[in-house]
Amino acid sequence: MSFDEKLKQLGIELPPPPKPVATYVPAVQAGDLLFVSGVLPFQDGKLTIEGKLGRDLTVEQGYEAARIAVLNALAIVRSQVGALSRVKQIVKLVGHVASAEGFVQQPAVINGASDLLVKLFGEAGRHARVAVGAAQLPLNAPVELEIILQVS
Amino acid sequence: MSFDEKLKQLGIELPPPPKPVATYVPAVQAGDLLFVSGVLPFQDGKLTIEGKLGRDLTVEQGYEAARIAVLNALAIVRSQVGALSRVKQIVKLVGHVASAEGFVQQPAVINGASDLLVKLFGEAGRHARVAVGAAQLPLNAPVELEIILQVS
Amino acid sequence: MSFDEKLKQLGIELPPPPKPVATYVPAVQAGDLLFVSGVLPFQDGKLTIEGKLGRDLTVEQGYEAARIAVLNALAIVRSQVGALSRVKQIVKLVGHVASAEGFVQQPAVINGASDLLVKLFGEAGRHARVAVGAAQLPLNAPVELEIILQVS
Repeated sequence: MSFDEKLKQLGIELPPPPKPVATYVPAVQAGDLLFVSGVLPFQDGKLTIEGKLGRDLTVEQGYEAARIAVLNALAIVRSQVGALSRVKQIVKLVGHVASAEGFVQQPAVINGASDLLVKLFGEAGRHARVAVGAAQLPLNAPVELEIILQVS
Repeated sequence: MSFDEKLKQLGIELPPPPKPVATYVPAVQAGDLLFVSGVLPFQDGKLTIEGKLGRDLTVEQGYEAARIAVLNALAIVRSQVGALSRVKQIVKLVGHVASAEGFVQQPAVINGASDLLVKLFGEAGRHARVAVGAAQLPLNAPVELEIILQVS
Repeated sequence: MSFDEKLKQLGIELPPPPKPVATYVPAVQAGDLLFVSGVLPFQDGKLTIEGKLGRDLTVEQGYEAARIAVLNALAIVRSQVGALSRVKQIVKLVGHVASAEGFVQQPAVINGASDLLVKLFGEAGRHARVAVGAAQLPLNAPVELEIILQVS
């Protein structure tokens, strides 16, 4: 089963890859490592979930935002390397969570991205991970993800 | 002298490697780079130092938290590659410091990790470093560390 | 035209490479990747722009701080590898922006660094990028940059 079929089976449709709004690019490959630019939870080109965890949003909403953000990253990966089957390993995920005073459940939020990666890629989706609380994120996004992958 | 002997000489005992509480793994190797997941200052499975620098904790307490956190990272490294003697170079350390309004001594806190790495590994322990102030960290931890190493 | 000539043409003079104030080093190379330590917007050894975006500084001042910070990174690169012509690709830039409540224009600030990299290196300057809002940064700096490059 191809990854496109697997995505369909999981009921997931990748968004169009987000376009950087400045003088940077969606991803850069160095050797077999692909460094993906920070992704926000865009849907149809808009942030449908905004604000800070611990004030504006529940953990469940944050989880969903992380899930949507990682789809944007996968859309970039597919557009850069041609097919998700070229992903050899998800190496590292850094998840930034916009956090109001006292919010300390960043890992539960970033699980929205981690769970999807493992569901889709299996062992190759198991990554090193960092979850931290940001003061603010671009465009008032609740979550921003940094991903490094190994590609074949 | 082996690194285990050197640790003993320094009066340091590595904790058991922390277990990720979600669908990620403690570390991923790509080529000769080992990317370690974010580590918190766990002792016996608990955070014994909690809160924000500049409000709840002194710089000295933050330094100690960074020292403890890096031991958790080294425990992961040893369990992943078998022995600390396989560390060729500590490449990069990113230190996130939970920071109250106005706290700007993140470097002094992260020195707790950097000093230990250099004491243990000598030249191979000298790393590129980033110290930043987070709004909040998981479980109300004062410090979270991201480490990239080169292994042989 | 050499990069030193190009810098001159752009009216840019690189500062002396900043000296780490602790037990870390300005940059570490692993394979052909050069990991540069976090840089602040130092000018003549001092921070001439301080404080948080969204409270103390305009976006324009933040943009200028990011431009100055990236010059510090380039000074490190030149001192580490001998000449900027050895830069094969700017791989990744993470920009931390000290952000007051409600400030969400981190990308516009970090453009100060990205624009300069592309102006100087052309295609080789186009990088993957992440812009996040920090609670605080060392020495009350408005911007801190992490850079990974590929060198030849």
